[in-house]
Amino acid sequence: MPGNLDNLRVVLVATRNPLNIGAAARAMRNFGAVRLRVVNPYEASFREARSAVGAADVLADAGEFTSVAEAVADCHLVVGTTAGGRRELQLPLRRLDVSSRTIRSQLKTGPVALLFGSEKRGLSNDDMSHCHWLVRIPTQEEQGSMNLGQAVAVCLYELARSTQPPTVRDTGEKTGSNSVRAVLAHAEDLERLTQLLMQTLHTSGYVKPRVAAATEQKVRRLLRRMNLAATDADLWLGMLRQIAWKLSAPESEPR
Amino acid sequence: MPGNLDNLRVVLVATRNPLNIGAAARAMRNFGAVRLRVVNPYEASFREARSAVGAADVLADAGEFTSVAEAVADCHLVVGTTAGGRRELQLPLRRLDVSSRTIRSQLKTGPVALLFGSEKRGLSNDDMSHCHWLVRIPTQEEQGSMNLGQAVAVCLYELARSTQPPTVRDTGEKTGSNSVRAVLAHAEDLERLTQLLMQTLHTSGYVKPRVAAATEQKVRRLLRRMNLAATDADLWLGMLRQIAWKLSAPESEPR
Repeated sequence: MPGNLDNLRVVLVATRNPLNIGAAARAMRNFGAVRLRVVNPYEASFREARSAVGAADVLADAGEFTSVAEAVADCHLVVGTTAGGRRELQLPLRRLDVSSRTIRSQLKTGPVALLFGSEKRGLSNDDMSHCHWLVRIPTQEEQGSMNLGQAVAVCLYELARSTQPPTVRDTGEKTGSNSVRAVLAHAEDLERLTQLLMQTLHTSGYVKPRVAAATEQKVRRLLRRMNLAATDADLWLGMLRQIAWKLSAPESEPR
Repeated sequence: MPGNLDNLRVVLVATRNPLNIGAAARAMRNFGAVRLRVVNPYEASFREARSAVGAADVLADAGEFTSVAEAVADCHLVVGTTAGGRRELQLPLRRLDVSSRTIRSQLKTGPVALLFGSEKRGLSNDDMSHCHWLVRIPTQEEQGSMNLGQAVAVCLYELARSTQPPTVRDTGEKTGSNSVRAVLAHAEDLERLTQLLMQTLHTSGYVKPRVAAATEQKVRRLLRRMNLAATDADLWLGMLRQIAWKLSAPESEPR
C-alpha cells in the first residue's frame, strides 16, 4: 500500500559509510518512504552512496543539511533512535514496537522525522535535544548496537507493517498449492487410496495376516490425519497405482 | 529477552557477498540468535566475513554444509524467505508478521530453520522444496527485493519481538494446526522418506528420466505439505522400506 510513509523524513546525521547511506535508501524504497535527509554526511560517502542499487531516486532527491534543526524544521514530531546503551538519556525512551502506533498516527497528520546517528557514536546529546522522544529497537543488552542500514530497515518495517492489514493471501491460504488445500480430498478418494495402499502392503509382505484388520485401521487413520488436498490425493493414487502394478508384474517393462 | 531464538537456525544459501554474511551474523547477535549455517557460500566470502564486527563468535561457530538437506536435517520446521515476486511459487506464502506467531510457537519445541537465498536469485525451486512454507516481508510491490543483511535483521526483529502484533487478528492460521500438533517429523526424516519414495518410484517406472528432477521436487513438496508427525513419518518409512525391498527382490518370500 504505497504512500503510507509519505510523511516520514528519514534523517541520517553525520553518517560515515556510503554503504550505509545506500542501504538506508534501499530500505526506504522497500517500505515506501521516499524523503531522505542527510545532515553533515562525510562528503565523499554521500557522493559514493548516490549509486546505490535500487534507490537512485531516493538518493537523487535527498536533501542535504548542515544542522539537525534545519533538517527537521517542518516536522511536527521528531523521534531519535538509540541503542539505549550506557548513556544517561535526558528524554523518554520507548520501545520501537510499543511506540510505533503513536508515530503512525502522527504520520497521518503531517511530517515526522526519524533520526539516525553516526555509526560510531549515534546521536549526540545536541542532536537528541531536537527530539520529542527516543525509540530503541529491542535488542539483546550485551549486543545492542545495530548496523545502521539494518536499524533503518527494522524501523521502517515496523512503521509500515501495521498499515497493511493482512489479506487472505498473506496467510498463505489462497496461494500456490494452498489454493487447493481448501478443496480437501473426498472420503471416497481417501478410501480408494487406503485400499490401494493396503493392497500394496499386502503384496509386499508388510501386512501380517493375524493383525491385518488392525493394520488397515492404522493406515486409514494415517491417511486421514494427512488432511490431503484433492490434488495431492490424486498424486498419491497415481504413484501407488504404478507401484502396485510393478509389484504384481515384476518381470514386465514399466508402462 | 535472551534465549528466545536459541532454537533458530539461520541458513544462508549460496551467499556471495561477505558483507552480507557478516551483516546477517551481526543481526543474529543483536536479537539473540546464535546458530548460523551456510550452504555453499562463495569460499572467499565466507573467509572474509569471519572478521565481521560484533559477530565473531557467531561466525566462528557457523556450520558449513554442501546441501540444504543437510543444513536443515535436525529441524522440525523449515521456512524459506522470498520477495514473492514474479515467480510461480509452489508453496504457501505467508506474510512475516502474520506467520511469526506460528514460528515462535514452533521455536519453543525444537529447531526451526529460516532460509535465505543468494543475493541475486533468492532460493531456487530445489531449495524451496525443502521448506514447509515461505514467508515474505511485506514490502512495496515495485521494490520488493530487500538487501540480504536487512532482510535477516527484519525477520529476527519480528521473531524476537515478545509482544503480539496488536492489529493482527488470528487470521485462520489454522493450517498451522501443526503449531498445536505434538512433535513434527524432522527435516532429516522427511528427506529420508523423500529419497525412499523416489527410489520406489524409480524402480516401479513412475519416474520419467527426462523430468526426474522436477518429479523429485514435486514429491519433496508433497511430503512437506502433509505436515507429518514424527510417528507418522516412521510409519511411512516402515511401509516404504518393505515395498522397496519387495520391488528389488520380487522373487523372494516376504519377510
